[in-house]
Amino acid sequence: MGSTFGRLFRVTTWGESHGGAVGCTVDGCPPGLPLDLAAIQHDLDRRRPGQSRLTTQRRESDTARLLSGVVDGLTLGTPIEIMVANQDARSGDYAAFRDAYRPSHADYTYEAKYGLRDWRGGGRASARETVGRVAAGAIARRLLARTCGIAIVGYVKQVRDVVAEVDPDRVSARAVERTPVRCPDPRAAARMIALIEETRADGDSLGGIVECVARRVPPGLGEPVFDKLEADLAKAMLSLPASKGFEIGSGFAGVLMTGSEHNDPFYSEAGRVRTRTNRSGGIQGGISNGEPILLRVAFKPTATIMRPQETVDRRGRRVLLSGRGRHDPCVLPRAVPLVEAMTALVLADHYLRQLPVARGLAGLEPPPRPRPRRRG
Amino acid sequence: MGSTFGRLFRVTTWGESHGGAVGCTVDGCPPGLPLDLAAIQHDLDRRRPGQSRLTTQRRESDTARLLSGVVDGLTLGTPIEIMVANQDARSGDYAAFRDAYRPSHADYTYEAKYGLRDWRGGGRASARETVGRVAAGAIARRLLARTCGIAIVGYVKQVRDVVAEVDPDRVSARAVERTPVRCPDPRAAARMIALIEETRADGDSLGGIVECVARRVPPGLGEPVFDKLEADLAKAMLSLPASKGFEIGSGFAGVLMTGSEHNDPFYSEAGRVRTRTNRSGGIQGGISNGEPILLRVAFKPTATIMRPQETVDRRGRRVLLSGRGRHDPCVLPRAVPLVEAMTALVLADHYLRQLPVARGLAGLEPPPRPRPRRRG
Amino acid sequence: MGSTFGRLFRVTTWGESHGGAVGCTVDGCPPGLPLDLAAIQHDLDRRRPGQSRLTTQRRESDTARLLSGVVDGLTLGTPIEIMVANQDARSGDYAAFRDAYRPSHADYTYEAKYGLRDWRGGGRASARETVGRVAAGAIARRLLARTCGIAIVGYVKQVRDVVAEVDPDRVSARAVERTPVRCPDPRAAARMIALIEETRADGDSLGGIVECVARRVPPGLGEPVFDKLEADLAKAMLSLPASKGFEIGSGFAGVLMTGSEHNDPFYSEAGRVRTRTNRSGGIQGGISNGEPILLRVAFKPTATIMRPQETVDRRGRRVLLSGRGRHDPCVLPRAVPLVEAMTALVLADHYLRQLPVARGLAGLEPPPRPRPRRRG
Amino acid sequence: MGSTFGRLFRVTTWGESHGGAVGCTVDGCPPGLPLDLAAIQHDLDRRRPGQSRLTTQRRESDTARLLSGVVDGLTLGTPIEIMVANQDARSGDYAAFRDAYRPSHADYTYEAKYGLRDWRGGGRASARETVGRVAAGAIARRLLARTCGIAIVGYVKQVRDVVAEVDPDRVSARAVERTPVRCPDPRAAARMIALIEETRADGDSLGGIVECVARRVPPGLGEPVFDKLEADLAKAMLSLPASKGFEIGSGFAGVLMTGSEHNDPFYSEAGRVRTRTNRSGGIQGGISNGEPILLRVAFKPTATIMRPQETVDRRGRRVLLSGRGRHDPCVLPRAVPLVEAMTALVLADHYLRQLPVARGLAGLEPPPRPRPRRRG
Repeated sequence: MGSTFGRLFRVTTWGESHGGAVGCTVDGCPPGLPLDLAAIQHDLDRRRPGQSRLTTQRRESDTARLLSGVVDGLTLGTPIEIMVANQDARSGDYAAFRDAYRPSHADYTYEAKYGLRDWRGGGRASARETVGRVAAGAIARRLLARTCGIAIVGYVKQVRDVVAEVDPDRVSARAVERTPVRCPDPRAAARMIALIEETRADGDSLGGIVECVARRVPPGLGEPVFDKLEADLAKAMLSLPASKGFEIGSGFAGVLMTGSEHNDPFYSEAGRVRTRTNRSGGIQGGISNGEPILLRVAFKPTATIMRPQETVDRRGRRVLLSGRGRHDPCVLPRAVPLVEAMTALVLADHYLRQLPVARGLAGLEPPPRPRPRRRG
Repeated sequence: MGSTFGRLFRVTTWGESHGGAVGCTVDGCPPGLPLDLAAIQHDLDRRRPGQSRLTTQRRESDTARLLSGVVDGLTLGTPIEIMVANQDARSGDYAAFRDAYRPSHADYTYEAKYGLRDWRGGGRASARETVGRVAAGAIARRLLARTCGIAIVGYVKQVRDVVAEVDPDRVSARAVERTPVRCPDPRAAARMIALIEETRADGDSLGGIVECVARRVPPGLGEPVFDKLEADLAKAMLSLPASKGFEIGSGFAGVLMTGSEHNDPFYSEAGRVRTRTNRSGGIQGGISNGEPILLRVAFKPTATIMRPQETVDRRGRRVLLSGRGRHDPCVLPRAVPLVEAMTALVLADHYLRQLPVARGLAGLEPPPRPRPRRRG
Repeated sequence: MGSTFGRLFRVTTWGESHGGAVGCTVDGCPPGLPLDLAAIQHDLDRRRPGQSRLTTQRRESDTARLLSGVVDGLTLGTPIEIMVANQDARSGDYAAFRDAYRPSHADYTYEAKYGLRDWRGGGRASARETVGRVAAGAIARRLLARTCGIAIVGYVKQVRDVVAEVDPDRVSARAVERTPVRCPDPRAAARMIALIEETRADGDSLGGIVECVARRVPPGLGEPVFDKLEADLAKAMLSLPASKGFEIGSGFAGVLMTGSEHNDPFYSEAGRVRTRTNRSGGIQGGISNGEPILLRVAFKPTATIMRPQETVDRRGRRVLLSGRGRHDPCVLPRAVPLVEAMTALVLADHYLRQLPVARGLAGLEPPPRPRPRRRG
Repeated sequence: MGSTFGRLFRVTTWGESHGGAVGCTVDGCPPGLPLDLAAIQHDLDRRRPGQSRLTTQRRESDTARLLSGVVDGLTLGTPIEIMVANQDARSGDYAAFRDAYRPSHADYTYEAKYGLRDWRGGGRASARETVGRVAAGAIARRLLARTCGIAIVGYVKQVRDVVAEVDPDRVSARAVERTPVRCPDPRAAARMIALIEETRADGDSLGGIVECVARRVPPGLGEPVFDKLEADLAKAMLSLPASKGFEIGSGFAGVLMTGSEHNDPFYSEAGRVRTRTNRSGGIQGGISNGEPILLRVAFKPTATIMRPQETVDRRGRRVLLSGRGRHDPCVLPRAVPLVEAMTALVLADHYLRQLPVARGLAGLEPPPRPRPRRRG
């Protein structure tokens, strides 16, 4: 009952790690949007395991199938169903965890809540669930790009104590993809890679911070008082596996400033109201102000480590557990497309939610009739 | 369209700062809960302006009226309506802001979104809106206390760079209320108070961090994958005025640890599964694990300052604006009951949401018939 | 948890018959809509008890207070709160029903569900709850009139076996209001009035049918597959007290026709697609087609009668109950504004819901800035 | 944006008639429910085209695949995904309708709303969408049977003017399935079959009424004031293709009675409160009272007929259209499982919604731990 996100651009993900498939349903995408599988597959490939030696070695082609909602390359306005089959599921690896609770995993809590759990590969709590989010996010990005020209770029800002220097106003997706760790600062990237490899060899794991910027967001997105834009972004990010914190704009560092230092002065530029600084992170009073939206998400070190750990089994007996299965020693590189996807989902939802507010008194006009392309 | 929070314990707040009244509707509170105005008024009094010289001098008695949903001291299971009249509204103070956008306030964004705004006292974007949240939160706390024995304690953890030392496992509401700054560490409290008074004299403002702990939360609350408990908490906190960041458990500091340091080992205590450390902050895989829930919220320095600031007016002309109106130089003390209220609202909602999961196969039993107390 | 209606034009009603007040919160009304109390009061007066000798003699001025969401005569886009105090509540009249279940009332089921009930005046199950619906409906009508020119006219089509002849394409609100029974066919109205008075003298009660037409509804409203326009209308109508049936277009009579008789042929008129007949009732495939929307609602005879009836009390003991309290012998005249209000709420919601569909690819434009009228 | 039904037992259907597949996602089914494909397939087979000469000749095996949410024969509490591939789609049959609007179909309104439509086989507006409803309904029935022992039986009550005599308190599913027309009154069934065959030969079509009874529904289901049980049932039924009316209990016929005839007297039977008559149809004040729930749904004659009809094309030009494609001359027999499925979805949702009300003050207990059956 918590598998749906968004109010007007509405995503439901489904699927367990070692079940038949994973996927998503997107309801609410406006009709007439050009959509092909390539755009979706592009983002899925960035999320896919086995991309580099930095990530898990599970091999999944993650080939998406588009089962509904699109005809002749255009969305219909009806639910879009995307399915990705599970292939390289080695449930045997997980047999040892059938009765024991892996520390800082969801094994115990799922069992406490549901009375049973799918122990194979983490079941629903596996990061594999995020396949559906990324597929839906790709559609949301397409919508945002076409309607507002919004560009969303995420990158690894920090791995443990290695902090990258990145200018959020200029960073490009290309620069991010240049390194396998998805950090656009080449020097920091090199140190991050070394640190991750060293830690993997050590059987241990690392956490870090993903930063994400959305540029060209129009003013007016976000619905006070509860569905403020930063509130929905915070929810989106804290719903990601392994995330522990969220900041918008100045974030936690902002508490060290005084009001006179922190306030963003307004000025006028080419008829547009702008701010000289952007401590607000592009959002004021819960509503976008037209400046870049800037957020950060903290991810804890991966819970699966290749070292023996103390835990208990279902009967409460003490157990010493050793890591198995194929996991990332550091989720950060693969977390980048997740943060981008969730950012896109929130913005797409609020883009649509703003329309009844802005157009509510303007009266209804019929939708433009798209010119359907004939199938080859 | 964003004024409702919660799915089963559902709160809608309404009201502008200088309108006729502010208030809330609570739909979904179970029937038969003993409820009197005193419990609600107690929390409203903690939020109320003018409590001490640290806070704004606006004078509002904030006396709640209970208009529906309760008979003979028991909730009926129908919507509970609470109204608080606005009294000391001095709209004249705001006349200067009618056309100019106060920096880092919601003036510009509300106007960009809605095409018009209530300029009197900040309108809907005023902290006065939180009256409804606190009233609803008081009902949620009552429900949680009665059903699970949950206790929620918030306190000021940090003002600017003054950090308090507090043991979240032991801190009491009484210790928090002992100082006007709501910091249970007396030494830090004294320094915070001095800092706030100094800053007020300076015409400037301060930010800080509220920490909040919820103890005796049963395992099983939270609904993956999107409505994870920490996700809904993050949303709740980032929906508060002036908040810029959220952390659960180890939060941003957790990124500096390795997995072997960060993981919480399970052990068994009196038949209950527990963790030796609590970096998870009481939540694993989005579901409470029975350990204390520990969260932190960053609040920016108050946007209203008593110094001239650069800004623009509605026509884009440059304006120099001086602060007026009555505001807190530091919102932290009054933010404590807000963080507690939002924590209570999230937990009450997920407490009710867990019931269909846990009891869904057990079949339906009729509700207990409460013994109504006769009215005096 | 069932007191909210609508997704984008969202109404929550609250209040018990003999509590402090009744009212509603409307969230989602677009900003900039001219709104004054007079429009709301007009519809409340039509719903009000004591209008004529045909209705209950409870005396309520039903004076609405507008507590939020409107400034300078324009909606703000924030929640609109309307409150109506309860005045002439004679709870003493209901003391006899404290322990006994009135037949075909909600006494038993409320107690079975909630474990307790507000026995005074029917509590939440009283028709007094509809005050909030009518107030919200008045706002919805205003929105629909201004944006699409939609006009909604309801009238009494049938009382017991007295059937009125009315042309839904031409009937006017003025004609409806001409008779106290709200039937625009004068001859049928006279017979209905005589029948109602006779039945009242007899201590008995009557049911009937309200028909309602909405003209100038644009094509495109309604969201298949579950939120079809007729589906939401059906829900709206069956949520009214005492309603037992709903029809759209040809309704139950349509089952007697063949497809070749029932189908509505399309033709073209002044560039607009129209239908020669309107068995569809203005909705095809769940979406409005531009023809008048025509619906009918069946209301059972009022449950309260002035005759002794067999029933049981809370302990299961047999009781003979005599009617008391002030009730309508026939709810039909006062049901007309309720049916109109619910029709307006559904159409306003779907009018707003259509905007993201129709405008989703057009990109976001800022809302028009309304010219606020200065207060006298 | 209208493809989801239910609040706690939440169904989303997806798919077009001639797309890759159709299916549904069920979120909110409690964990631990034994579920196999056979139960789902059984109901799908009853909905399937080509069952008898009375129905369309499209050939679909409608074999369901269960992609998630079930492990070892038990539900996990996570989303259940069911997919049915489309096989016998003959889009060529529909080429003539690509530009012309079929009368009383959804062609025109979909195009008016979305700007484009999937013309192949009716797209999303096809009855094929109901595959997902029936699959979800089968799960809901399973849940209701196990927890409350609820039995739902639907049947054809009327085809055109042929009315069956059926005792809703005793009718069995077996008796319904005995005739291909799904009417348990053998004499009426024979006349209905003759009428349907005659009408088919004539190139015309028929409508009728499905009646449905739910027995052993516990008191307490339904959430006033808007989500009354009959309101949600009405919405469910009017969301079905071709439905034009809904009645609960006495329905439209009830308007001919007086209150003294219509009221259901209460009496006590074995400690249970019961009613002597059931004009209320098992629901009072929007809440089930423990008596059988009895409803009726009117279905119009099938819009597709094999006769030339007047219509217009997309450019507004007059067109004479002849029926093609494979359709039912009378949807009634196949509508029976649809009405049952929707009844089950509403009851399952309200069964779960009642739990927080009835158990909200009782405190949280952990769910029973199911004994998973090992896979063969």
